[in-house]
Amino acid sequence: MAGERYVHGYRPQENQRLHDQAGVLVDLLHHDTAYRAGSTVLEVGCGVGAQTVTLAKRSPDARFTSIDLSTESIAEARRRIHGAGLTNVDFLQADVFAVPFDAASFDHVFVCFVLEHLPRPADALTNLKALLKPGGTITVIEGDHGSAYFHPDSAAARAAIHCLVELQRAAGGNALIGRQVYPLLVNSGFKNVRVTPRVVYVDSSRPDLVDGFTRKTFTAMVEGIREPAIAAGLLDPHQFDEGIRDLHRTTDADGVFSYTFFKGVGTKGTLKENTDGR
Amino acid sequence: MAGERYVHGYRPQENQRLHDQAGVLVDLLHHDTAYRAGSTVLEVGCGVGAQTVTLAKRSPDARFTSIDLSTESIAEARRRIHGAGLTNVDFLQADVFAVPFDAASFDHVFVCFVLEHLPRPADALTNLKALLKPGGTITVIEGDHGSAYFHPDSAAARAAIHCLVELQRAAGGNALIGRQVYPLLVNSGFKNVRVTPRVVYVDSSRPDLVDGFTRKTFTAMVEGIREPAIAAGLLDPHQFDEGIRDLHRTTDADGVFSYTFFKGVGTKGTLKENTDGR
Repeated sequence: MAGERYVHGYRPQENQRLHDQAGVLVDLLHHDTAYRAGSTVLEVGCGVGAQTVTLAKRSPDARFTSIDLSTESIAEARRRIHGAGLTNVDFLQADVFAVPFDAASFDHVFVCFVLEHLPRPADALTNLKALLKPGGTITVIEGDHGSAYFHPDSAAARAAIHCLVELQRAAGGNALIGRQVYPLLVNSGFKNVRVTPRVVYVDSSRPDLVDGFTRKTFTAMVEGIREPAIAAGLLDPHQFDEGIRDLHRTTDADGVFSYTFFKGVGTKGTLKENTDGR
Repeated sequence: MAGERYVHGYRPQENQRLHDQAGVLVDLLHHDTAYRAGSTVLEVGCGVGAQTVTLAKRSPDARFTSIDLSTESIAEARRRIHGAGLTNVDFLQADVFAVPFDAASFDHVFVCFVLEHLPRPADALTNLKALLKPGGTITVIEGDHGSAYFHPDSAAARAAIHCLVELQRAAGGNALIGRQVYPLLVNSGFKNVRVTPRVVYVDSSRPDLVDGFTRKTFTAMVEGIREPAIAAGLLDPHQFDEGIRDLHRTTDADGVFSYTFFKGVGTKGTLKENTDGR
């Protein structure tokens, strides 16, 4: 994560957004992740601990090491973990490209909403593979802003979302990375790769998601880049605000919003599997 | 369906395409549809019977009435049903806007890949509601071409898909209707409406879907409108063929393709529920 500019996060209202998002999406994203007692898990890019609390609660007898580039985020994550009464997480400020761990140190690696921000996600995965013991697993979760569509459809709303994609690209990231989780894991040498889409489908029969996801997570995230998008000349203020208005329009009684996350799991082969090739 | 031009279907290779599609997608779309013994089900727009065989097999003691505008399609559907040894389906050539049935004749209505072709889908649903007994259910399944995205991403491929959307719109239909299943059912007065997305996620770990869905269903469907798209001036031949080439590119080992169908179920309220309002 060295040298990159992080498109969102760090501000208090952003922390609240990331927290709301985690609350609504916990089951969808994490219901099938649990680690055995005694296993060691490296969480990469823990941020303010939105996923860390869920992970540590769901696997109370596994031992987590959660790293992030930001000491401020780690301080907040530590507060949250202590607030939740959890004691199975160690935090460490570290860069995924320069981690202070020996090779083959961990049973599992967990990476959520991180690769989207990295200029070299494949290199990051290769580095992380080196930290895994043979037979260990990696779990990767990423969104894909190109998976967002809605009713009523709106060119203005699509243009506002596209600003986020462009700003993230300019910062060295990739907001469309969800669809690439499979090839990234395979090309980094992981075996038995299995990717599954996790759709957040929202209509007015699901009011928690209308508020928690469409309004407070996705639309809030797009609203959050209003100033840099306008400053970069991607849209003028009127156009941008029209897009935001149309995203809010999808939260009306007849509105629909859909977004997809991708979760991939792969295994670091044993020495025999790796020399046998695929 | 009167007065509309059907964008795909009717030719032998098209029948094969629709058949392949049904084979691959049966579980995803139909695993949660089964009708009780003795219940009467109206299938609207059965076409060549791709869904009819599945429905009739999964509910062997329900009685189906399957209608379509095309006598040729019905003849083929009847051959398939007989070939499958099924005897619980009656076929009838009829228009959804002028059906020869009394009000409140059916326990259930089933509509799959039909509303996308209708200029007035809400009116069709209102008509179908009249045919249901109070407390009866409607099941609607529709695709949404705006839900298609893939890796590698390609503006040419998106432009070729957009031709299909435009031709369907010109024919009075709506290739983006999947996301509207919820508001269409609610606005037609159905109660307890529940819509669920059904994602066809394809990477090279799922070779049956690479071949059966990405190549032989979706890309074949887009290829099928090459001549009308070019004749309508939507793309020139070179552009269109580049789009098709890029769609095929998504079937390579590192390619990914995603498409979403929407399935909605609603209930016709009892007299009391309807007068109570919502």
